[in-house]
Amino acid sequence: MITTANIKNGVNVDQLVETIGAVQENPELAKFEFRSKNNWIEGGHCVSSIKSFYGVGAEDTSRQEIFTMECDHPNVLLGKDEAATPPEVVLHALGSCLTGAMVYHAAANGIEIEGAESSLKGGVDLHGFLGLDAEVRKGFDGIKVRIKVKSNSSVEQLENLAKFSPVFDMITNPTPVSIEIVK
Amino acid sequence: MITTANIKNGVNVDQLVETIGAVQENPELAKFEFRSKNNWIEGGHCVSSIKSFYGVGAEDTSRQEIFTMECDHPNVLLGKDEAATPPEVVLHALGSCLTGAMVYHAAANGIEIEGAESSLKGGVDLHGFLGLDAEVRKGFDGIKVRIKVKSNSSVEQLENLAKFSPVFDMITNPTPVSIEIVK
Repeated sequence: MITTANIKNGVNVDQLVETIGAVQENPELAKFEFRSKNNWIEGGHCVSSIKSFYGVGAEDTSRQEIFTMECDHPNVLLGKDEAATPPEVVLHALGSCLTGAMVYHAAANGIEIEGAESSLKGGVDLHGFLGLDAEVRKGFDGIKVRIKVKSNSSVEQLENLAKFSPVFDMITNPTPVSIEIVK
Repeated sequence: MITTANIKNGVNVDQLVETIGAVQENPELAKFEFRSKNNWIEGGHCVSSIKSFYGVGAEDTSRQEIFTMECDHPNVLLGKDEAATPPEVVLHALGSCLTGAMVYHAAANGIEIEGAESSLKGGVDLHGFLGLDAEVRKGFDGIKVRIKVKSNSSVEQLENLAKFSPVFDMITNPTPVSIEIVK
């Protein structure tokens, strides 16, 4: 008997169901820790290296590549425009995470996604970052996301699936960040 | 007379002071809008393109390059591990932004930063994302950042400077995100 994997939207649904079952049997498997190392280059130009993580009850040994990513600032923000700014990188993470969450949960629910593309925008008022007005926040005052999806599912259902996104949760709800500075 | 630019920590302090002065004279110059376009590839694999932004009273025309960035997921999270996950990308943005904010504000205050490197980690419990426990959040339960700084300034002052970071604000405080799904 030949069996083929049950793939939907590029997601292996059999593996997804197995993962859910494994987590239900052993809740410790659900605990992940993600990490990044960041090195300052100059001004607002930095580079991050990402490889190791903990998950499924152990340190990962499968990832072969170190992913490196840079941030910089455009000339008007005193940089050399070598890479996207940190707020733009947040938009990248959010767009990817909303889409991935929608696609995974659609696969789990038997919903086909044929295509998805999104545009994101966020407004910043520099009075916050520059310390000129304590009433103005330093980060985005809000983010607008528009996702064009090719699917037979309803927009309401697709929106509910996208909202399983971990990054959407991190941005819309407060996430505690502890900072330790050492010399 | 030969004049040299006043550069500290890789930041042009003259340009920074001019920027602050310009914003104080014309508050509209402080309004920025950053953008990202995201395209789904398959499963949890996406690519973003970042170029245009609005700031200093006009659409930017200086940026020449389109910055592209991918997100994917490791094998245990049903991906092909082509790129970092969205939560890891958030750590990259946060580490870069805390460092950049510290460096810019140090420059403005005449504080020299000779070196900075940081490590970031964030914990996730998949019970949230998988929809197995509504009490467990989908995103990081918290982020720990350790920044090693070579500087004569105090750790307290450096921490206060880093906290001008826009991404730190976005993550620690709720940022409204509106999602519009279209077919």
